[in-house]
Amino acid sequence: MDLTESAEPQDAPAVGPDPGRGSGGNGGLLRDLRTGLPAAAVLTDPQVTASYAGDMASFCEAGTPAVVVLPRTVEEVRHVLRTATAHRVPVVPQGARTGLSGAANAVDGCIVLSLVRMDRILEISPVDRIAVVEPGVVNAALSRAVAAHGLAYPPDPSSWEQCTIGGNIGTASGGLCCVKYGVTAEYVLGLDVVLADGRLLRTGRRTAKGVAGYDLTRLFVSSEGTLGVVVGAVLALRPAPAPQLALAAEFPSAAAACAAVCAVMEAGHTPSLLELMDRTTVRAVNRLGKMGLPETTEALLLAAFDTPDAPAGLAAVGELCTAAGATRVVPAEDPAESELLLQARRMALTALETLRPATMIDDVCVPRSRLGDMLDGTTAIAERHGLTVGVCAHAGDGNTHPVVCFDPADPEETARARASFDEIMALGLALGGTITGEHGVGVLKKEWLARELGPVGLEAQRAVKAAFDPLGILNPGKLF
Amino acid sequence: MDLTESAEPQDAPAVGPDPGRGSGGNGGLLRDLRTGLPAAAVLTDPQVTASYAGDMASFCEAGTPAVVVLPRTVEEVRHVLRTATAHRVPVVPQGARTGLSGAANAVDGCIVLSLVRMDRILEISPVDRIAVVEPGVVNAALSRAVAAHGLAYPPDPSSWEQCTIGGNIGTASGGLCCVKYGVTAEYVLGLDVVLADGRLLRTGRRTAKGVAGYDLTRLFVSSEGTLGVVVGAVLALRPAPAPQLALAAEFPSAAAACAAVCAVMEAGHTPSLLELMDRTTVRAVNRLGKMGLPETTEALLLAAFDTPDAPAGLAAVGELCTAAGATRVVPAEDPAESELLLQARRMALTALETLRPATMIDDVCVPRSRLGDMLDGTTAIAERHGLTVGVCAHAGDGNTHPVVCFDPADPEETARARASFDEIMALGLALGGTITGEHGVGVLKKEWLARELGPVGLEAQRAVKAAFDPLGILNPGKLF
Repeated sequence: MDLTESAEPQDAPAVGPDPGRGSGGNGGLLRDLRTGLPAAAVLTDPQVTASYAGDMASFCEAGTPAVVVLPRTVEEVRHVLRTATAHRVPVVPQGARTGLSGAANAVDGCIVLSLVRMDRILEISPVDRIAVVEPGVVNAALSRAVAAHGLAYPPDPSSWEQCTIGGNIGTASGGLCCVKYGVTAEYVLGLDVVLADGRLLRTGRRTAKGVAGYDLTRLFVSSEGTLGVVVGAVLALRPAPAPQLALAAEFPSAAAACAAVCAVMEAGHTPSLLELMDRTTVRAVNRLGKMGLPETTEALLLAAFDTPDAPAGLAAVGELCTAAGATRVVPAEDPAESELLLQARRMALTALETLRPATMIDDVCVPRSRLGDMLDGTTAIAERHGLTVGVCAHAGDGNTHPVVCFDPADPEETARARASFDEIMALGLALGGTITGEHGVGVLKKEWLARELGPVGLEAQRAVKAAFDPLGILNPGKLF
Repeated sequence: MDLTESAEPQDAPAVGPDPGRGSGGNGGLLRDLRTGLPAAAVLTDPQVTASYAGDMASFCEAGTPAVVVLPRTVEEVRHVLRTATAHRVPVVPQGARTGLSGAANAVDGCIVLSLVRMDRILEISPVDRIAVVEPGVVNAALSRAVAAHGLAYPPDPSSWEQCTIGGNIGTASGGLCCVKYGVTAEYVLGLDVVLADGRLLRTGRRTAKGVAGYDLTRLFVSSEGTLGVVVGAVLALRPAPAPQLALAAEFPSAAAACAAVCAVMEAGHTPSLLELMDRTTVRAVNRLGKMGLPETTEALLLAAFDTPDAPAGLAAVGELCTAAGATRVVPAEDPAESELLLQARRMALTALETLRPATMIDDVCVPRSRLGDMLDGTTAIAERHGLTVGVCAHAGDGNTHPVVCFDPADPEETARARASFDEIMALGLALGGTITGEHGVGVLKKEWLARELGPVGLEAQRAVKAAFDPLGILNPGKLF
């Protein structure tokens, strides 16, 4: 939000060719946009609009927007879409641009439609356990607001202090909580969506249950802005759980840690967190955060419970870890110490990014029973290519984030990095998994989406796209 | 299954005109169907096929099938759909026909495609917590099979001893468990679907998470056979919970009982069951089952917990009930006594059906906070029309089942019954609810679906239908 506010051009002179008057032929577009938007909601300074070109994904093409619009109301969004349809101009919806797949990247000549100013929490109902929000609400802001009512909004992507609910809905974001609480999709009850031609569609419900017709709500969740623009959401909330109590278990091999994960789940436990960090990740985290994690371990498993009988759960999990070969099991003394362990885990991606000049973050999810094969296979790929690949994983979900570290200044190393990145996805598919557990497809993985879905699956996806966006103006070039 | 098996015509002579040779012009259709199906899988005896005409909904039109097919393999289903497309003949998919909205009702000249013989459980994985099943598996059979592995498949519609998983998926069925565990939709991870033209589409995943492209899995759930034919499903399982411990609370008014429901949910409890029966229902259940429920109560609330600390949860809920005006709170002594209370609740619809020659069962779900208004309004509607309307409700979900009792031999009373049925839905919509929480739309509520969705919503639904079934051969006349 701050960036956006300070980026408002107001009366500042445009730098470079003004698309409103330049040779690009955008004069009509800008004029028409301005008939339904305040002046401050239309940004055309190329230096400013360039800052909206992409999200946080590496190596994803990003075009040059013709204009960035920052509406505050549903009517303003409808005006933008009607104008875009009239002019046949692509629209790229954006939240906080913290995505990791390029789904929010601009295409040349597009309208970037940033929803960050629609950031109101409209309602929180403890009895109905719902919140009604605009799409630009930041995840952490919502989490804090509902906590004041004794409630929780579980989805907690790593970027939760920046990312918006609209962006979370666009990619169906996950987080550390998913092993017990599931992903964003499971918390979206209903949506207000502006369609490509400006019509306003209301999907779903604000009731606990409802089966009236096709579930269009879930169709928009994870659609990455390619079917419509989410302008409002009814979200399900849960009672706030007790603070988590965690343990850390050290393993002599990733395979042993994965065996422990399987044993824990097979025994019927429901941990609130079950995360794995390999040695590369542990060392990177220690270096970045001075966390004092044990560096001799090949794989560190973190487990937590948020139930009244958490200590009993942890004791049982600790025993299963020991039986699976853990060399050491260290329960946290209290929730504060547990929170430190979680902080170490949350630091993992950032820490891995410090190892080499650049990284590519994968997001392969396999059936939990194949997690060991996935990790061993990833190690083999890294060794074959002579690269550092650190892995942290939402182990309880079978969702791994292999981070391929490399130097983009070295073309040969970059080629090996890309090959590794692809081989990791191929391995995931071969193990019955998916190319993306929670980060989405965007630009980064669209070739791989086609491989995962196969021809009939891709045809079905394209048919849905055509039904909602016959002109193809909504976030073109994403997904497929 | 038994009915189906005994209905096989084998070599029995056809009774009545044989559509295979008769004047109906179905000869080509039947010949083509038989090229890809065993003889025993094609039923044409009109007396037999007539028994497949409808589900358990009252007052829903049902046509005369041309033929009933009972495939055992995916390839056979694909053959049926290819043949139907070639002949432009409607296909009506069916499970156990226990539905309550006419969604499985035949249309004249259709192919009834019964999936009950595809009834294999293909895999149960305790580590991955999934089951892979064919659509004809009976809900209770799956529940028992997974229980043997210490797992649970929560969705438990009243008809769970008869209804099939395919049918549950078609309507996104609910049950008593939903207040804690949600509806069928939340347990469907992936599907194999035969499309209208015979192509085989695989959706979703067998992993805990996955966001690769549009969520077509959820699109097929609750689509009532109008988008494709489900021939396989990957279902999520949960660890088996502890047996439920329940209490019964007697209230002097429905409003007081609903206030207790709101207080329980607002206080952050997560009961495994929170059900309400009004006095009419309680008396009907006593008469049918000699259950000894308290007949002086205006509303009986049942609450249960399946956690280790169930007694503490029940004590807290009991206090909230008393504070809300309960005249008596009776905790069950043990799980066996709790199970008796649940049996009484499960008997409710059947018991209400004994009050008058016929019933119409509504399924309106409102925000929990409006449950009291919904129940009081339903009473007012019943009084205005001089009818008996018994109400049982999944109170924790705000999902009410008002059962309108009447004599179809009396046209004037029937008219009043239908008017009441409609007014109850109008009331639900006015309270921010939905016309169907778990029973689906089918034939029964398609006019009301249009009212709930509005014109843009209906256009969007039709666009999806056209994308998947351009010829309109899949279960025509249902939903809209």
